[in-house]
Amino acid sequence: MTSSIPTAAVLLIGDEILSGRTKDANLGYIADYLTVVGIDLKEARVVSDEEADIVAALNALRARYTYVFTTGGIGPTHDDITADCVAAAFGVAIDHHPEALRILREHWAGRGIEENEARLRMARIPDSAELIPNPVSKAPGFHIGNVFVMAGVPKIMQAMLDAVAPKLTGGAVMLSRTVPLDLGEGDVAARLKEIQAAHHGVMIGSYPYERDGRFATNIVVRSRDEAAVTAAAAEVERLPEELGGKSAS
Amino acid sequence: MTSSIPTAAVLLIGDEILSGRTKDANLGYIADYLTVVGIDLKEARVVSDEEADIVAALNALRARYTYVFTTGGIGPTHDDITADCVAAAFGVAIDHHPEALRILREHWAGRGIEENEARLRMARIPDSAELIPNPVSKAPGFHIGNVFVMAGVPKIMQAMLDAVAPKLTGGAVMLSRTVPLDLGEGDVAARLKEIQAAHHGVMIGSYPYERDGRFATNIVVRSRDEAAVTAAAAEVERLPEELGGKSAS
Repeated sequence: MTSSIPTAAVLLIGDEILSGRTKDANLGYIADYLTVVGIDLKEARVVSDEEADIVAALNALRARYTYVFTTGGIGPTHDDITADCVAAAFGVAIDHHPEALRILREHWAGRGIEENEARLRMARIPDSAELIPNPVSKAPGFHIGNVFVMAGVPKIMQAMLDAVAPKLTGGAVMLSRTVPLDLGEGDVAARLKEIQAAHHGVMIGSYPYERDGRFATNIVVRSRDEAAVTAAAAEVERLPEELGGKSAS
Repeated sequence: MTSSIPTAAVLLIGDEILSGRTKDANLGYIADYLTVVGIDLKEARVVSDEEADIVAALNALRARYTYVFTTGGIGPTHDDITADCVAAAFGVAIDHHPEALRILREHWAGRGIEENEARLRMARIPDSAELIPNPVSKAPGFHIGNVFVMAGVPKIMQAMLDAVAPKLTGGAVMLSRTVPLDLGEGDVAARLKEIQAAHHGVMIGSYPYERDGRFATNIVVRSRDEAAVTAAAAEVERLPEELGGKSAS
């Protein structure tokens, strides 16, 4: 590794990880992602929902590494203090962000969700930060300086990581292709593992869902290399034929 | 929480976790374990196989917390440098430990395994450290001061944790109660904050999820005091009635 390779740290924020109540799934995902993008993940920390600890970790990590990625602590409850801690770490003010408010109010209005003080917390963004879109549940993340603040819910975090990847220098752009399969995750897991092993520099994620009472799975193939995406996706696309007749699970 | 409850940090050592090649399973296990034992896990870090980083993390964590548990880096290969780093952090010498040598040689002899320089590395233990037995593959961990050095392989780490548990002066067991609510996190956030504030020594966590297209939330009330759990959980259980009619989000 040379010094020209960008470095990164991950900061996982939340008492629930340290108590064991939630088993973190984000570190491994981000580690895979950064490896494929070409960024050298050098350190990770898990801290509890205490302002002094979060601010100290943020300042230690952002001074040392090219990028810092945080997960967790940006929801509506009183223990969601990540945005305030980032503002404190950068020494900037924090307030309701007009665009974040607009996005959330449009989302709430469309679903008859009541606006209240707790939910409005999700629009609090440090001054000068840029929003990171959240296609899943709308409440945005943000980035300020070299710090990228993302949700703790894996599905949301993963979408946010896709959104910020083009802003990262050093790594090439991450390309992805989604292959929808009318098969359960359990049907394809063994073959996916083999396809993953056979395709270096490719990340294969599986996202199961239920539709009309049937289980189905979106397979997302990611890589910096378009030919690698195409080759791995082609193998995934052949799975229904290979596995024809198996019931979804 | 009072200052009499012992605190802990976990230090996961290994490039393989940061590259994504290995998905860590130890942090979640240790977190659960310490919660049950009554020790408050306050922080975790993942560092790569670089001496300066390991020593700096060890010294930061052992100065701050009652106990530090490390995993990884005590095998036979050149990048297994944890024992040397612990010796450096404590400023003590390190050499082949007679009892560790005896255990390993007996194991090797019984299986026809060749003794070589690489394998002998596994007997290197900092001066004044005490061995932690390894019933799985024999190569011991050790503890020195408030630092417990364990293997990275989960099955071995778990056996080592059982071996060291009697040496830990733990607090009482942590009690928890889960209250399932058919309400969105945003609906209950404001009241949860009040309930949290009114119940000293209780930790209230909220864990939202989606079920059949509806948002719901599990509220987990934790304390080392059963009466405190019961009192706080009773208030949480009254929330649906208090907030009746609100839509989940």
